[in-house]
Amino acid sequence: MSFCIACGAAGQHLIPPGDNLPRLVCPRCGHIHYENPRMVVGCVAEWEGRILLCRRAIAPRLGYWTLPAGFMENGESAAAAARRETQEEAGALVRIDAPFAMVSIAHINQIHFFYRGQLTTPDYAAGEESLEVALFHPDTIPWDDLSFRSVRYCLEAYLRDKPQGRFGFHEHELPPLTG
Amino acid sequence: MSFCIACGAAGQHLIPPGDNLPRLVCPRCGHIHYENPRMVVGCVAEWEGRILLCRRAIAPRLGYWTLPAGFMENGESAAAAARRETQEEAGALVRIDAPFAMVSIAHINQIHFFYRGQLTTPDYAAGEESLEVALFHPDTIPWDDLSFRSVRYCLEAYLRDKPQGRFGFHEHELPPLTG
Repeated sequence: MSFCIACGAAGQHLIPPGDNLPRLVCPRCGHIHYENPRMVVGCVAEWEGRILLCRRAIAPRLGYWTLPAGFMENGESAAAAARRETQEEAGALVRIDAPFAMVSIAHINQIHFFYRGQLTTPDYAAGEESLEVALFHPDTIPWDDLSFRSVRYCLEAYLRDKPQGRFGFHEHELPPLTG
Repeated sequence: MSFCIACGAAGQHLIPPGDNLPRLVCPRCGHIHYENPRMVVGCVAEWEGRILLCRRAIAPRLGYWTLPAGFMENGESAAAAARRETQEEAGALVRIDAPFAMVSIAHINQIHFFYRGQLTTPDYAAGEESLEVALFHPDTIPWDDLSFRSVRYCLEAYLRDKPQGRFGFHEHELPPLTG
């Protein structure tokens, strides 16, 4: 990744004046290209006490169960991204209640952010990125077949809070997987 | 902004197969360039009941007071970004206590995320991006000279929560300014 997005010239990795990190800088037009972490936004959506999960039809973690979530797009709010992803991946309409959890995953430059909410109807259907979609009772969550550590963290926190009738906002940092 | 960052060819704005939004796609090497919202991360840092603010030395809103905050960088967690920005802009060391507020600003493709925390010492000094730094009692906050609506939202929520001795997590969406 080393060409200027503004003019196409070969870029240079150097620290711009007044900055303290190397950026992709264009020697021809001066454009500075910044790379920043991306937000993956999703939600824990319930229907009558059961939680909506999607089985992934795409890599990574194809075949594993996940919360509906995906990259937030320019021009939308975080809550709008969660509603959109729930509709795209699970064919379901969710009413967002509140922010619930945020997981920083520094080594892959991502923030995973989850809301909690309620399905507005019990209708759902696998979208293009899902093999299947289902509602799970808390005691049937497929813990051994979850897609990502952030999803596990979020579901565990959710099921700890739920019996208390009061939800907090939870934050976590995930290190690289080892061994 | 229309050249391929991977090979320098002129890119095309089109919807890639399996996608539903136009992206900058390279007709030569096939690279797809995604643009996503950026996170601005900062904190409300207290010392003995006073709140740390910085007066901006850079555009936009040069000369106005702000919470220490800035663009989160690749390779760091959100809390690490808040600590780094507090050190860079205010020359101060902060112990992060908890996430406090998130503001979606869809029309500028940003999320503003604020923690709350405590300065570990009463030392501070204006960094390169600050004209001055000061601690403000809640009743001396310069409300008419704040930098951004997200900063005002965060400070108002903070000062509402504080007398109750219990802080929540607050979320807000900001529409474009009109008039």
